[in-house]
Amino acid sequence: MTYCLAIALEEGLIFCSDSRTNAGPDQVTSYSKMHRFSFQGERKLFLLTAGNLATTQAVITQLHRDIEENLQPLIRTANYVGDIADYIGSLMVLEKNKYTDPSGPDAGIDAGATFILGGQIKGHPPELYLIYPEGNHITASQTHPYLQIGEVKYGKPILDRIIQPDTPMETALRCAIVSLDSTMRSNSTVGPPLECLAYNKDTLSSEENYAKLRENDDYLVAIRESWEKNIREAVEDLPNFETYFSNNR
Amino acid sequence: MTYCLAIALEEGLIFCSDSRTNAGPDQVTSYSKMHRFSFQGERKLFLLTAGNLATTQAVITQLHRDIEENLQPLIRTANYVGDIADYIGSLMVLEKNKYTDPSGPDAGIDAGATFILGGQIKGHPPELYLIYPEGNHITASQTHPYLQIGEVKYGKPILDRIIQPDTPMETALRCAIVSLDSTMRSNSTVGPPLECLAYNKDTLSSEENYAKLRENDDYLVAIRESWEKNIREAVEDLPNFETYFSNNR
Repeated sequence: MTYCLAIALEEGLIFCSDSRTNAGPDQVTSYSKMHRFSFQGERKLFLLTAGNLATTQAVITQLHRDIEENLQPLIRTANYVGDIADYIGSLMVLEKNKYTDPSGPDAGIDAGATFILGGQIKGHPPELYLIYPEGNHITASQTHPYLQIGEVKYGKPILDRIIQPDTPMETALRCAIVSLDSTMRSNSTVGPPLECLAYNKDTLSSEENYAKLRENDDYLVAIRESWEKNIREAVEDLPNFETYFSNNR
Repeated sequence: MTYCLAIALEEGLIFCSDSRTNAGPDQVTSYSKMHRFSFQGERKLFLLTAGNLATTQAVITQLHRDIEENLQPLIRTANYVGDIADYIGSLMVLEKNKYTDPSGPDAGIDAGATFILGGQIKGHPPELYLIYPEGNHITASQTHPYLQIGEVKYGKPILDRIIQPDTPMETALRCAIVSLDSTMRSNSTVGPPLECLAYNKDTLSSEENYAKLRENDDYLVAIRESWEKNIREAVEDLPNFETYFSNNR
């Protein structure tokens, strides 16, 4: 499985992803699910992937070929991130349909994939999209300005309680890491290393903040220790049930 | 949907359930999913239900009829809670199979249900089981001594971080309420009132602690406010990513 998460804030965009691609008993493999297409000063695009690995790799490969062959690639010429989301959706559906012929011998195989695409094109505000296996896409909502793909449920409550459009980047990034760490802890098909990226709005000319956190990375260990301790204290601090119950007998 | 949770601690058993049974757009109905069979001084059994409502109601009705007709009902005569779990499993499979004839006009309908059964029979330690839609059952694990049915993922991380066999009843009960509240917040198919029950080991002769928490119940509101405040502080207290990133550039 996979768990990837992106957050659209007033200050910019946050992306986080795990790296486990097959948690079958024999082969636990790790692949990066975070892909960056950066044209310094001009546009920055970040793509998170979930679903059939052959399909997502084919899409990423095609995007890189478009750029290498340099024939006015859409990823470089489009005026809107949404148009690039359309293109990625159509690439993916083409690729998926090669292997999902309903009358063929592999009928029933799901070669579909899901993507989160975010970024900024000069002169436009940042944009963030979730691309469905059908190829169409949605944006994040104003009230809960985040998008998730893969194993999304374990890590959702912390986001629902904290993330708002005006949440500071630093706070949202920490929440995202806790959301991924909680998911890894509760589900063995999501695993390290974690990749975290913070893109501050209108910083097309500078490098974005990026870190890869391995299983025993100092920062990840420190985050876990601090969170466990504070969660325990938060539980201890909750109103007493016994007292409530006795008063309402 | 449904979310029910039970915890087996050294001190006793905890049960929590939501009450939403159909979250379709037209009809949001609430039914209790917590059922008590109490024979003062002799045995106490607690049953949580998820899945097809007709099936769970038929099983509960049969258990009550067994007692009313008083023909040595198994729920009253069995020496082990596990034997009662077997019986409930077989009642459920019988009921389910009436409506799931694979060659009949309703082929494909899933009338299955899942149960959590816990309790204590005099002279034996407390027991806790999860009964699958196939009728067989498992106990809770020693390392993560809890069982969940229904919409289980949202509320799992808090349990994985806190619950151990030696966790005090009061702490576990608060965790269970947070686990249910987080699930209600992140998923509209799980809803109030919440029912919470704490059974202290070897208290067969006294009343167990029970509370029904409605949407705006003072205690539930106080739990939420305290949790939100402390979770925010816990996030603020996490190690700084920006600093970490700068030091590792």
